[in-house]
Amino acid sequence: MNTFGRAFRLTTFGESHGPGLGAIVDGCPAGLELAAADVQGELDRRRPGQSRLTSQRAEADRAEILSGVFEGKTTGMPIAMLVRNVDADSSAYGEIKDLARPGHADLGYFLKYGHRDYRGGGRSSGRETLGRVAGGAVAKKLLALKGISIYAHTTAIGDAIAGEASLDDVINNTYKNPVHCADLASVDALSEAIEAAKRHGDSVGGTVEILALGVPPGLGSPVFGKLDAGLAGALMGIGGVKSVEIGAGIDAARLQGSEMNDELYVDDGQVKAKTNHAGGILGGISTGMPVVCRIAVKPTPSISKKQRTVNMRTREDATIEIKGRHDPCIVPRIGPVAEAMMALVLADHMILSGLLGPDHI
Amino acid sequence: MNTFGRAFRLTTFGESHGPGLGAIVDGCPAGLELAAADVQGELDRRRPGQSRLTSQRAEADRAEILSGVFEGKTTGMPIAMLVRNVDADSSAYGEIKDLARPGHADLGYFLKYGHRDYRGGGRSSGRETLGRVAGGAVAKKLLALKGISIYAHTTAIGDAIAGEASLDDVINNTYKNPVHCADLASVDALSEAIEAAKRHGDSVGGTVEILALGVPPGLGSPVFGKLDAGLAGALMGIGGVKSVEIGAGIDAARLQGSEMNDELYVDDGQVKAKTNHAGGILGGISTGMPVVCRIAVKPTPSISKKQRTVNMRTREDATIEIKGRHDPCIVPRIGPVAEAMMALVLADHMILSGLLGPDHI
Amino acid sequence: MNTFGRAFRLTTFGESHGPGLGAIVDGCPAGLELAAADVQGELDRRRPGQSRLTSQRAEADRAEILSGVFEGKTTGMPIAMLVRNVDADSSAYGEIKDLARPGHADLGYFLKYGHRDYRGGGRSSGRETLGRVAGGAVAKKLLALKGISIYAHTTAIGDAIAGEASLDDVINNTYKNPVHCADLASVDALSEAIEAAKRHGDSVGGTVEILALGVPPGLGSPVFGKLDAGLAGALMGIGGVKSVEIGAGIDAARLQGSEMNDELYVDDGQVKAKTNHAGGILGGISTGMPVVCRIAVKPTPSISKKQRTVNMRTREDATIEIKGRHDPCIVPRIGPVAEAMMALVLADHMILSGLLGPDHI
Amino acid sequence: MNTFGRAFRLTTFGESHGPGLGAIVDGCPAGLELAAADVQGELDRRRPGQSRLTSQRAEADRAEILSGVFEGKTTGMPIAMLVRNVDADSSAYGEIKDLARPGHADLGYFLKYGHRDYRGGGRSSGRETLGRVAGGAVAKKLLALKGISIYAHTTAIGDAIAGEASLDDVINNTYKNPVHCADLASVDALSEAIEAAKRHGDSVGGTVEILALGVPPGLGSPVFGKLDAGLAGALMGIGGVKSVEIGAGIDAARLQGSEMNDELYVDDGQVKAKTNHAGGILGGISTGMPVVCRIAVKPTPSISKKQRTVNMRTREDATIEIKGRHDPCIVPRIGPVAEAMMALVLADHMILSGLLGPDHI
Repeated sequence: MNTFGRAFRLTTFGESHGPGLGAIVDGCPAGLELAAADVQGELDRRRPGQSRLTSQRAEADRAEILSGVFEGKTTGMPIAMLVRNVDADSSAYGEIKDLARPGHADLGYFLKYGHRDYRGGGRSSGRETLGRVAGGAVAKKLLALKGISIYAHTTAIGDAIAGEASLDDVINNTYKNPVHCADLASVDALSEAIEAAKRHGDSVGGTVEILALGVPPGLGSPVFGKLDAGLAGALMGIGGVKSVEIGAGIDAARLQGSEMNDELYVDDGQVKAKTNHAGGILGGISTGMPVVCRIAVKPTPSISKKQRTVNMRTREDATIEIKGRHDPCIVPRIGPVAEAMMALVLADHMILSGLLGPDHI
Repeated sequence: MNTFGRAFRLTTFGESHGPGLGAIVDGCPAGLELAAADVQGELDRRRPGQSRLTSQRAEADRAEILSGVFEGKTTGMPIAMLVRNVDADSSAYGEIKDLARPGHADLGYFLKYGHRDYRGGGRSSGRETLGRVAGGAVAKKLLALKGISIYAHTTAIGDAIAGEASLDDVINNTYKNPVHCADLASVDALSEAIEAAKRHGDSVGGTVEILALGVPPGLGSPVFGKLDAGLAGALMGIGGVKSVEIGAGIDAARLQGSEMNDELYVDDGQVKAKTNHAGGILGGISTGMPVVCRIAVKPTPSISKKQRTVNMRTREDATIEIKGRHDPCIVPRIGPVAEAMMALVLADHMILSGLLGPDHI
Repeated sequence: MNTFGRAFRLTTFGESHGPGLGAIVDGCPAGLELAAADVQGELDRRRPGQSRLTSQRAEADRAEILSGVFEGKTTGMPIAMLVRNVDADSSAYGEIKDLARPGHADLGYFLKYGHRDYRGGGRSSGRETLGRVAGGAVAKKLLALKGISIYAHTTAIGDAIAGEASLDDVINNTYKNPVHCADLASVDALSEAIEAAKRHGDSVGGTVEILALGVPPGLGSPVFGKLDAGLAGALMGIGGVKSVEIGAGIDAARLQGSEMNDELYVDDGQVKAKTNHAGGILGGISTGMPVVCRIAVKPTPSISKKQRTVNMRTREDATIEIKGRHDPCIVPRIGPVAEAMMALVLADHMILSGLLGPDHI
Repeated sequence: MNTFGRAFRLTTFGESHGPGLGAIVDGCPAGLELAAADVQGELDRRRPGQSRLTSQRAEADRAEILSGVFEGKTTGMPIAMLVRNVDADSSAYGEIKDLARPGHADLGYFLKYGHRDYRGGGRSSGRETLGRVAGGAVAKKLLALKGISIYAHTTAIGDAIAGEASLDDVINNTYKNPVHCADLASVDALSEAIEAAKRHGDSVGGTVEILALGVPPGLGSPVFGKLDAGLAGALMGIGGVKSVEIGAGIDAARLQGSEMNDELYVDDGQVKAKTNHAGGILGGISTGMPVVCRIAVKPTPSISKKQRTVNMRTREDATIEIKGRHDPCIVPRIGPVAEAMMALVLADHMILSGLLGPDHI
């Protein structure tokens, strides 16, 4: 099940250390200007090795468009994108191929599929998200035509909580620092949380907020095609995410109705809400207010500390020390992936709701 | 989009004040013993009017099975279930039909569909969940054949947080009290939180934990058919849910990898984990440990306090006072719905993973 | 798998001798005028017992709409329709329940599902098509808004081939005679083919042509969502159909390209074709010309002649004589079903292609 | 809509004169031995330029596997396959880009998508079938594990009808001659039908029979997942196909029930049929008898004769003379494509019916 979406569909493929990874976008209307550079720009935002805070693996990740674009514009045909793997040193994996790395998907793949590409986690590697980001790049360009923009920014790393950030901060500051935090005053604290984990051979989690601006009312179809349900599934499906919130999220549980309900008013003929505890979605349908999601990301499971585990083949207790270059924290890199997933969901619903033509723009 | 699932599929229909509501389960293997009483038992658990804490509407909600069962067993054909609406006083709704109730789906439906059944919220009413619970009843019976059981229990109402509860408490105590709390010592505090909201013409939210025991390893298909993604979408799609967590959930964000990773060991040939921060799912695939989810539920939007809103038709500011009988808190009633959604997801994945035959048991 | 369609979706349920049969239409835009009488009209057209040529079973088949319609118009919510079974004498089936009726689905159901409702064929009965016709009735009303109309007429019964019929004949004559033949001069011959089969305790097949007028260009999505592929699947899925042709159909095989190609010309700014060997579809996309399909229908498998067969349970050779009231020919009754399936396909593609709004008309 | 199947899914991409074409197979169980040579073998069977009877374009069509295979076996992950376009002379297309070639999909693409890759038909080219054949190669290997084999052979070209062929003839003779006819005595006549069309600057159609042997009973799910409906949709979706028959096919229309019904008997504990008018499918479910389909293929629309048509952009009448190298008859080359589509349908249903494990073999 490597296809996502109903009208705007993404199919991804590829493993961490195989020949390459890629994505096919099917259902993108014809007439959208699209170049490999559009995709490349998004891939570069999720690229590791941009600073000492993230993995040192120098992933070239050059995107090639194989189909669906003619004379610089989409044709309505499937858009295939390919990224060849070039820096794939798999020597570190042979010796631990039968050991289940704690917190990793190894055991599930071993039990479910029997035969697996264990090198670098194979398909369960974070590199799988390349395909999501490539597909999301197309979705973003499409949404931009309708004035919809999406922003993810880091709001906490471990115990370091970022300060409040205005929308302008989010738009302008996020990619000016390696932790992708919109509040520049918090950058040092968040960076130090990562550095500390790294010093201890450990890793650390964090939280990310994802915003969509310009979303029109009417996206989402009750009762099993709700927009919030779609976003929750899309975001929870990103490796490492353990929680998804919409609007007030977990805080909604302790509020009174008179606090939670967003009062409505008319502004220049448009219905608006004074607050946005709903996160832009009521009854599964977008309201026209910004769509606001938050995700909690677990610490990277690959740590150099010795851990107790099992040998999956012999069914014996074992210990493992994971070598190789690993991000002590994937939170700064998960933002572009979360943006991509939100873009895919919104593009899908824009077409499903008839707000974007299915065949041509 | 009123169909849920890929192999074990539920289609629901019906409005709060129309002729009736119902559900069609398609993809249930033949040979499962099923009677209307099985469905009725689940419907009764979500029924309001069981205590002074919930809505006084006396919903009879008698389930009839129309197809798919022959001589007491399923035949593999679609199982249609119908509940006629009997107590549907819609007189209170005519006068507010053009006013958007804050926190409700009214505006979205109005803008999206133009023509809507406004009585009692129509399809956006909580009564829509009858179809989910009916479908979930079939899924639960099917899962029970494989030793899988599902339990939801209330863990907080507003600021009242329930004490820790053992698994035995969850199984034995939850339905012995009207707030469906597994820790009996917390029942009074949770009840009082609801009573207080009611006294003030207000409402209150809460949290619910949902557990699945006996889930075998191997459910869930990377990268877009992951079990946790499916659960998140299923639970977030329940009206009023604003947050979904798996395992450590939101707490995962502040942990170190060495804390979060569940160390593995071999017990009698089976691989087990010492802790369950993963919530029974790694890489989107079940591990054999209990599957643990938590949801945050917002306060019921229908409150009797006066609120500012808009007239959707005239596009003018307005005020609204919502009359009628409304639950001040839906948290105790959402448990059976959450159980149903988890059961539907698990039944679907059991068939998709080949652990349950698609045609017959 | 009892759901059909992607955007305009039909789910059906029910068995020949169970409590009832029904259909849920999901994805019908809001605002369409719809009453039970609309559905009833289509059900009546497929009803047996209208003449001595068809089964004498007096099926009342009263349609009730349970949801999705408010104040006479659709709301965009699922439209559930129910037909209770009233004339269900199943006494004739008990004695042959372990015998596979030749040409029937008995053996497949027995092997696949183990437990089956054998009464009247259960779900494999022709009564299953009630749900298709009910769903098709909604599709037809929707298509009529866009000027699309659908006509099926009998073109042969056994060796009796109907004469050529003009479009006016098809529209005006088809339902003026019990064999539903557009060429009134051929009615006697076609009727006699059925009578002859009946006299011999036998049955007979035939062919039906289905036309859609007013179909706009642009329906159908290459390469796996083609309109002709969808029609072929929809029509072949009707019980008894053994062949589907589009346009020139089987005759295309013996033509030269210069004969087959429909030459194009411009008429008042519109592109038209001088001939219609393509049947209104090229490359899987409608061209704006009438869509033309033909189906071959096998003779009813239930015949009173003694036949050799097997006892499915004991795995022994056996003979069978099928009693009860059976149509000697289902061809005249399959027209409304074929129209319904074509209507469902076209309504689905009208929405998928953005030519009908998904949410409201 | 470029994805086919529900459990065993194929997504294809690519245009005739773009960078390349490809296929992603998703849902293939792990553990299947698969090499690029397996795919290459099937691609070679559909390759033109094998004789003077077909197009002279020398398509190299080298298949590369990009993912989903590790150490020679599938891993359950998506299998991406890529064929680069190497011989793509598009100079002939620029001058006719605004003219609708009669019998081609040009007009539909123009009206539907606005912007299209007109070179060589773009995605509507017969080269699109490369992706189908690549996907079918994987399906065939999977089916072979269960003893299922598929054979297509040419049964007529224009008015030249091939003689009867035994199953042995089909298996042994079909690929010994350029028209892929199982009856060697008919090869000259079928070849001459193609030669004659070529001499006249014309083209010719034909018919192909497709057989599946070893298909177990139980494939197909009533009422909208029937095996025959799936096959009809799959085969009609191949470019140029205008008719699909199952078993007796169009002849069923003129038979009596006593002739059409296949009488059953028990042979060594297995239920078998004396005849196979049903074509191996009853009630939409396979019976265990061979599955037999026939398709009618229209003559290639690209002919060198002058034809009347329209300029799509200016909306004026025009004439066209199509240059370039075109097959006068695609019938011999459509066999491998038809085999691929049948293999995809059967592999899908084998998994859906639980007869093949979804995760590993």
